[in-house]
Amino acid sequence: MSTTSSSPGAASPSSPNTRVRRLAERARYDEETVHAILDEAYVAHVGIVVDGLPVVIPYACARVGDELVVHGSTRAGTLSAIANGAPVCATVTLLDGLVFARSAFHSSMNYRSVVVHGAARIVDDPAEKVRCLDALVDHLMPGRRAHLRDATEGELEATQVVAIRLDAVSAKVRTGGPNEPHDDQLANVWGGVVPLAIRAGKPQADAITASDAIVPQVAGY
Amino acid sequence: MSTTSSSPGAASPSSPNTRVRRLAERARYDEETVHAILDEAYVAHVGIVVDGLPVVIPYACARVGDELVVHGSTRAGTLSAIANGAPVCATVTLLDGLVFARSAFHSSMNYRSVVVHGAARIVDDPAEKVRCLDALVDHLMPGRRAHLRDATEGELEATQVVAIRLDAVSAKVRTGGPNEPHDDQLANVWGGVVPLAIRAGKPQADAITASDAIVPQVAGY
Repeated sequence: MSTTSSSPGAASPSSPNTRVRRLAERARYDEETVHAILDEAYVAHVGIVVDGLPVVIPYACARVGDELVVHGSTRAGTLSAIANGAPVCATVTLLDGLVFARSAFHSSMNYRSVVVHGAARIVDDPAEKVRCLDALVDHLMPGRRAHLRDATEGELEATQVVAIRLDAVSAKVRTGGPNEPHDDQLANVWGGVVPLAIRAGKPQADAITASDAIVPQVAGY
Repeated sequence: MSTTSSSPGAASPSSPNTRVRRLAERARYDEETVHAILDEAYVAHVGIVVDGLPVVIPYACARVGDELVVHGSTRAGTLSAIANGAPVCATVTLLDGLVFARSAFHSSMNYRSVVVHGAARIVDDPAEKVRCLDALVDHLMPGRRAHLRDATEGELEATQVVAIRLDAVSAKVRTGGPNEPHDDQLANVWGGVVPLAIRAGKPQADAITASDAIVPQVAGY
């Protein structure tokens, strides 16, 4: 059940050094794969080093061109460390299924993941900052931006937007059923895949919402 | 739409230093919250520092007592670094919903997250290693272990199990609808929550599986 095992179609090096080298070899292939995965992701887990120790924090994310964008309060310590140019590693994982083999060893998960290494930059140009925040809204809540008022000056000042370039990036993908030796293939034990996905439930309007307000459509993945 | 914003019921310090101090103050409260979140998680994003740079890798995970357990191939470089006592940060995020306010600024996500700081230990006692692997199987695939053959010596040798103690740990939880100023509360814009959860689809048996084999039940969260 290791997420480090079989990975057809993957660029999945085992260390940061090989990661970047292998990325360079497969850059075109990876861009398509990487973008498709990021474009389905709600959350990136962003790692930085603080006083020599790793810190991993989840952020809502969106791809904007060839960068991964996250945001938060200007008062958030971790985001400030990210924004100040500390090396970051942003990882996105889409869990697609549980793979039932007839042994624990060959059981697995289907998933698509992306690992990005790099330094973040603060998005401080006002127009670009607004574009990034609009992109975040419309990525997470498709079509929503058109229904919302513009951000105020105060809101923009209170919000920090950081962007991580998708240069040193790799994707890893596992698909398909169990991959196990013939001796294990016992018909009386169920083998196969149970798909998993993030799904949206019934929208719950608050008390203010008028009965004819347009209900958002959320796709999940 | 910041995951760093409002967090009712949370222990969510802004730096590793305060994190550990606040954990110590709220240890009993946190244990219940933390265990409940970890017990619904499929994946932990584990961060370590390699040559001064952060690396964040997703692992299938399970809580076993007061430890978070992950596993992988003994040949996996990152897991070996984790197992060798490097400081780690393991983060689990359960995404519970999208919060639709009438502004981007007050829009948010509902989620439950746990951040664990610590050093990992290799689980090398053979009996304990088997218990941890069994726990992983039954956490991710409830009741599955009883249907599977025992692991072979070779499989156990090829698998590395590492455990991270839940000592320096904090939980962060956001629930509920939009929290926005009165002036923003326009009835003609839909406000509220669209729940999100990982859901299981229809199990897809492989060609070997007999028609009367017991189909696994997967709960999602």
